[in-house]
Amino acid sequence: MIPRYARPEMTAIWSPETRFRIWFEIEAHACDAQADLGVIPRENAEAVWRAKDVEFDVARIDEIEAVTKHDVIAFLTHLAEHVGADEARFVHQGMTSSDVLDTTLNVQLVRAADILLADLDRVLAALKRRAYEHKDTVRIGRSHGIHAEPTTMGLTFARFYAEMDRNRNRLEKARWEVATGAISGAVGTFANIDPAVEEHVCAKLGLRPEPISTQVIPRDRHAMFFATLGVIASSIENIAIEIRHMQRTEVLEAEEFFSPGQKGSSAMPHKRNPVLTENLTGLARLVRMAVVPAMENVALWHERDISHSSVERGIAPDATITLDFALNRLAGVIDKLVVYPDNMLKNMNKFKGLVMSQRVLLALTQAGVSREDSYRLVQRNAMKVWEQGADFKTELLADPEVTAALTPAQIEEKFDLGYHTKHVDTIFRRVFEDGQK
Amino acid sequence: MIPRYARPEMTAIWSPETRFRIWFEIEAHACDAQADLGVIPRENAEAVWRAKDVEFDVARIDEIEAVTKHDVIAFLTHLAEHVGADEARFVHQGMTSSDVLDTTLNVQLVRAADILLADLDRVLAALKRRAYEHKDTVRIGRSHGIHAEPTTMGLTFARFYAEMDRNRNRLEKARWEVATGAISGAVGTFANIDPAVEEHVCAKLGLRPEPISTQVIPRDRHAMFFATLGVIASSIENIAIEIRHMQRTEVLEAEEFFSPGQKGSSAMPHKRNPVLTENLTGLARLVRMAVVPAMENVALWHERDISHSSVERGIAPDATITLDFALNRLAGVIDKLVVYPDNMLKNMNKFKGLVMSQRVLLALTQAGVSREDSYRLVQRNAMKVWEQGADFKTELLADPEVTAALTPAQIEEKFDLGYHTKHVDTIFRRVFEDGQK
Amino acid sequence: MIPRYARPEMTAIWSPETRFRIWFEIEAHACDAQADLGVIPRENAEAVWRAKDVEFDVARIDEIEAVTKHDVIAFLTHLAEHVGADEARFVHQGMTSSDVLDTTLNVQLVRAADILLADLDRVLAALKRRAYEHKDTVRIGRSHGIHAEPTTMGLTFARFYAEMDRNRNRLEKARWEVATGAISGAVGTFANIDPAVEEHVCAKLGLRPEPISTQVIPRDRHAMFFATLGVIASSIENIAIEIRHMQRTEVLEAEEFFSPGQKGSSAMPHKRNPVLTENLTGLARLVRMAVVPAMENVALWHERDISHSSVERGIAPDATITLDFALNRLAGVIDKLVVYPDNMLKNMNKFKGLVMSQRVLLALTQAGVSREDSYRLVQRNAMKVWEQGADFKTELLADPEVTAALTPAQIEEKFDLGYHTKHVDTIFRRVFEDGQK
Amino acid sequence: MIPRYARPEMTAIWSPETRFRIWFEIEAHACDAQADLGVIPRENAEAVWRAKDVEFDVARIDEIEAVTKHDVIAFLTHLAEHVGADEARFVHQGMTSSDVLDTTLNVQLVRAADILLADLDRVLAALKRRAYEHKDTVRIGRSHGIHAEPTTMGLTFARFYAEMDRNRNRLEKARWEVATGAISGAVGTFANIDPAVEEHVCAKLGLRPEPISTQVIPRDRHAMFFATLGVIASSIENIAIEIRHMQRTEVLEAEEFFSPGQKGSSAMPHKRNPVLTENLTGLARLVRMAVVPAMENVALWHERDISHSSVERGIAPDATITLDFALNRLAGVIDKLVVYPDNMLKNMNKFKGLVMSQRVLLALTQAGVSREDSYRLVQRNAMKVWEQGADFKTELLADPEVTAALTPAQIEEKFDLGYHTKHVDTIFRRVFEDGQK
Repeated sequence: MIPRYARPEMTAIWSPETRFRIWFEIEAHACDAQADLGVIPRENAEAVWRAKDVEFDVARIDEIEAVTKHDVIAFLTHLAEHVGADEARFVHQGMTSSDVLDTTLNVQLVRAADILLADLDRVLAALKRRAYEHKDTVRIGRSHGIHAEPTTMGLTFARFYAEMDRNRNRLEKARWEVATGAISGAVGTFANIDPAVEEHVCAKLGLRPEPISTQVIPRDRHAMFFATLGVIASSIENIAIEIRHMQRTEVLEAEEFFSPGQKGSSAMPHKRNPVLTENLTGLARLVRMAVVPAMENVALWHERDISHSSVERGIAPDATITLDFALNRLAGVIDKLVVYPDNMLKNMNKFKGLVMSQRVLLALTQAGVSREDSYRLVQRNAMKVWEQGADFKTELLADPEVTAALTPAQIEEKFDLGYHTKHVDTIFRRVFEDGQK
Repeated sequence: MIPRYARPEMTAIWSPETRFRIWFEIEAHACDAQADLGVIPRENAEAVWRAKDVEFDVARIDEIEAVTKHDVIAFLTHLAEHVGADEARFVHQGMTSSDVLDTTLNVQLVRAADILLADLDRVLAALKRRAYEHKDTVRIGRSHGIHAEPTTMGLTFARFYAEMDRNRNRLEKARWEVATGAISGAVGTFANIDPAVEEHVCAKLGLRPEPISTQVIPRDRHAMFFATLGVIASSIENIAIEIRHMQRTEVLEAEEFFSPGQKGSSAMPHKRNPVLTENLTGLARLVRMAVVPAMENVALWHERDISHSSVERGIAPDATITLDFALNRLAGVIDKLVVYPDNMLKNMNKFKGLVMSQRVLLALTQAGVSREDSYRLVQRNAMKVWEQGADFKTELLADPEVTAALTPAQIEEKFDLGYHTKHVDTIFRRVFEDGQK
Repeated sequence: MIPRYARPEMTAIWSPETRFRIWFEIEAHACDAQADLGVIPRENAEAVWRAKDVEFDVARIDEIEAVTKHDVIAFLTHLAEHVGADEARFVHQGMTSSDVLDTTLNVQLVRAADILLADLDRVLAALKRRAYEHKDTVRIGRSHGIHAEPTTMGLTFARFYAEMDRNRNRLEKARWEVATGAISGAVGTFANIDPAVEEHVCAKLGLRPEPISTQVIPRDRHAMFFATLGVIASSIENIAIEIRHMQRTEVLEAEEFFSPGQKGSSAMPHKRNPVLTENLTGLARLVRMAVVPAMENVALWHERDISHSSVERGIAPDATITLDFALNRLAGVIDKLVVYPDNMLKNMNKFKGLVMSQRVLLALTQAGVSREDSYRLVQRNAMKVWEQGADFKTELLADPEVTAALTPAQIEEKFDLGYHTKHVDTIFRRVFEDGQK
Repeated sequence: MIPRYARPEMTAIWSPETRFRIWFEIEAHACDAQADLGVIPRENAEAVWRAKDVEFDVARIDEIEAVTKHDVIAFLTHLAEHVGADEARFVHQGMTSSDVLDTTLNVQLVRAADILLADLDRVLAALKRRAYEHKDTVRIGRSHGIHAEPTTMGLTFARFYAEMDRNRNRLEKARWEVATGAISGAVGTFANIDPAVEEHVCAKLGLRPEPISTQVIPRDRHAMFFATLGVIASSIENIAIEIRHMQRTEVLEAEEFFSPGQKGSSAMPHKRNPVLTENLTGLARLVRMAVVPAMENVALWHERDISHSSVERGIAPDATITLDFALNRLAGVIDKLVVYPDNMLKNMNKFKGLVMSQRVLLALTQAGVSREDSYRLVQRNAMKVWEQGADFKTELLADPEVTAALTPAQIEEKFDLGYHTKHVDTIFRRVFEDGQK
């Protein structure tokens, strides 16, 4: 976890305080279920809840752990200090440490997913607003970094919206993947504890009982979870790269918001760096690097080995905290992105009208000019634009061989931007109204 | 693609013949839609279907491409050789190469997914059959590679079933992700072609229209697809590792099927190597390596750059062909796995009864013996087993301090395997009857 | 292996013919050494060399393997068909299949490395030539994609040269890593064969004897080899990205060579796509994806498991063939890159003189103007450039507050490009004369 | 960074205190060089050294950064508070933040490498000691997890020694890779600062001047550095997996040291888990995950973009701290590993003498028995061992067809372990005396 790329709400999920709080809830609910089954006395189960509002003392638990060399036992010992040694003596009965640890991890991942879903909603809201704002702001579409045909800035925002909408959908599925708990004992057979306890605890924590666990919850679930975060991170990179391109000095179709007071901005107005989106590009790599180890974690030996644990101590907080930060940074960047429609037009017309050469070529052939002649005609006028900076339309209108085939109005029509934007509403309807596809 | 790890049906999806066949279908359906819109003459659209049953000549197309330097143009030229130059002149009108290429890729991925789903069904069927067969075959459960508590071989198969069942579910979602097509032109604006064409072609090919494309279909879809294959591969590794462990000389609880005639098997009966599951472990790595580049492919420049293309030429066939092969090999391994229940019992009893020491410890404390004394009693009998190879139950029954607290029947009961298997049916019901969770 | 990204010389290394040829050499040299030791008769050793110039029949060997289910035995059987069954009966004595297979793999990797080293030399030669050609071609240096200070195109080429020179150095080390052979028997103890055989065979094949092997050569060597290829691939991506940026329509400081006859170039002169460098970007990902599985291959069980084998069947040919192709494509791109010095100047002056604002700011403070005032002065003139397209130097010369602090000559001097290029020779000397650092 | 997997010395390298200390040294040495060149007054350069022993106040610097939004400026401001605003006014002159930041990163990586080299020495010392200790401790060698031929525990330690010795060699090279500094200005042209400053600062810090930098030091160096850490991590995994296998209940040839007092050890003596090596397996994944992002960091835009920065804030401390911890844990595990030679013999003889069947087969054929008959003879005796638990040698000695071909002494000889260990000294000499190969 890199503090500067961390937000408090997500970070809190991974604090020892939160962890112990979840441990407490699991143990307390388990006691209730055990009392329901008649396995432990009702009053002992009830006594556990005395610690309901206690702030567990992390330092004290660490102190005990230094002696017992076991984190869950240390916690239970501390819990007994609050509940009473005698009252607490049935806590954790029939359970295995992993029952607590794995169920807790999943509670944390589910909570993390909920924050990330809210983050995505913020990103989506910003994208949608900007998409409608610039629905008709024409800019040149580019393939291979080279001018192709006109499109609109709104379509750019809209496609990022559609991509992030898919990511939201994927994240919901990923959340579902890890929303399970297990209280099934040393090798998952429920030998020492009734499945009813698992069912009760899971219901209370908003989880589904893991249909079959060993000592642990199977790690393919977590692999899928982190793989999904990796895809979302890649989409962040996708948007970041677009903005970085737009802010290049030679392109300058948009800029990350730069507060007027920000030093250096006005003495060197050309030097506003897209540092936020560059940063997002790096953060995407950080999130993505969790994917492979999460997959390597799947193949545990027999009913469990503990190789996955250190990996998850790293990637679980790191990937979720970094992605949360990145999504919020992204929402802010989109929200406040300064868009320059004039520069978009200027760029599109860098080679005056040349981006329309294909339409003219097609029009000539459709008007009955042979393919070779059409090509020759377009070429000779295009080269004047390319080499001498002439205006393509003007040249065409002045070329008698061209005007013999096409009327001035027909030529004019080939330069009509409306031709390129006529289906924008259709696309917007698909993206914003027809629902996730 | 490594020929020895390839099956013909999946390989065929990626052949030039199949590719050209899909190209043809896209072009022909697009012509129909264009004729419906009145954009091109109906008879020209109909003429295209003359090539319906033609086997396209790959060598001839390559020959043309060597001249035109453009694969789609080469194909269209060849198509015209079948359909007639004049009749074919409206083919591809208003379309862009990527419309054909990207839609084709997704058709191929969808077909690949269908094969993989059938593969998974074969794996699931084998796992289910073996699970029921060995539902009550007791073996020792292990955590950290160390004996823990008894479980059953059926539970092992059942948990792999549940894992692969989740993978099937994931793969269906991944198939859905890539089941889109796009016929939207140079930058995705439909400037030169009506969205109705896209809708018609997609419907015919079993795809959904991509709500918003640029020149290409967005690559987050493919990233998710390959990430899912990576998770499935990791589960294959998980099962493979279990079997490799079971076949270790010292464990020998199962063996990959070894045909009686197989050379060396009977002169060196101890030397039957789990080469299939070792191979599966490697194949899992090969499939998984597609995940990161697929994610790196998401961030294309503006409306597209072509960096993703070479990556996909590699990973799309390689990952699907390898996974198909691996799933089939896995199904065979599971189906024919030779299980040794006697060795399972022998292993479990390696330290005669010692795996029950924790139950005895618990019983003593529950019988009112202090925690310290219980521990001391268990310890002194356990050490006789560990150091002198004594039988734990016999020792306990002969220890007056133990028998003062527990009756012989109570001691016997602690060694009852039924205690550990009592919830197997519950778990089986969850896994095999309650549906994917 | 993707045929279109493969060159014949490298591909040939991975052909069955080459593999069998190396197998033959290992077996024949081993026989010589065994004869030297008196283990086998000299005449039998000599007889093996009868097959020296034989083209082994791959189809025949496959046919035999279909029966024997063992590749090395199939080869030996076929060899006996050439040498004579009786004469061949001592071939392979005391050896294990892995002795042949692992030593062969390393011979192949060493040969592949030699080709890659020659490829790098081609890249280096092109970079050096272009560096000197454009040593003094001024262009704007950019940080964050934003204009910073002037540099030269020669420096750009020179830094890529230095990077590739480091890669050459790394590749030599990587070649050294895998230049070992092992003929040490089933678990590496030389129980059945004298170490002298290994020494002889290795010497003949240009390898070092592996100091300690098990059944296999340790895979950390190969992990290091493929990791190095991954770094080289990343450098290819680095150069490719630079060229793609330079070819962007708005930048156009260079273009990949476009043959005059190439279709479409003159009718759409703006539409020359950097497809080669985009392709290189993708190929870099393909090479890089070998790195992680090669590392996962290191941890084999005990004296060997065969999980690494399928991985290497994929990545060994794929990564070397792809990298060979990529380096050659890169050499060609650099060699023929069309550089546009005029556009470099035009871009640099997009905001007329504004890139010098920092130098002016510094000069003002050094001339005794307070930091605040200096800032204010630069700012008010800079904004005229930024907002009204004025020329920065002209504005400064006309600003009495500025000219009160700086003489016209001093102002002029701040716009002297020589200031920025004065150390180019020093840097060139470091890069091209001082040797790899 | 995960606190429980961190050691203080390595962690300290990445503390803000250390970072600011290095920044100070760079700035102070740069001032000296500038004074030598006559660029700044000598007394100002000298004044900077007043802060030589100052403990910089991190909180104060953070406070300033909160205002200036720039970390280097914040530091310089704080430095001036110690040195005097007037005296400090020439500090950093002509430099760019990256000059300080990148040079500092490399100083940190070099220091980290030095610690890691010392760690490796500790691992090597332990491996060497244990190798000699168990040079002649016979155990069964295994391929595919299946018994193959005898080897010795000393050879196992020796091969890990050789592997780690190679890693030490690689790490020295990796250290060399990043032992460069750059003080070359905004785009690396030395426009504002003489190369002599870079040379002086680098010499003082134990670095080489980067031959050609842009705004940053090229990231292929760092990619190579982290790739090397990834290889070392993979070797750790390799050793960890071996030990985990040895500690399996059924194998029990070695155990991680378990302090006698450790709870549970004697009441459940079978339940000593190899948690340290399992943990090392996970830590290896954590280190390895730095490799891909480090490679993705190589391709920066033009003279730099800042996408690499956030990645390095994560991976630079995390990978070095984790690897340092892992190597130390590994050294301890090896040092104190409890080896069970008796169990090694017991395992080897699990199928009494059967591992020698191949030697007997060979002896029979060499004694003139046909291949088919030899096979049949071995097989019928082997099956008695396999199926009835007979002793292979006894059976052979009692088989008249066998004894017709081989004398009892010859049969006995085939079971002589010395046959397998006769070259152990040769191998030890290669590994421990002949130097890194």
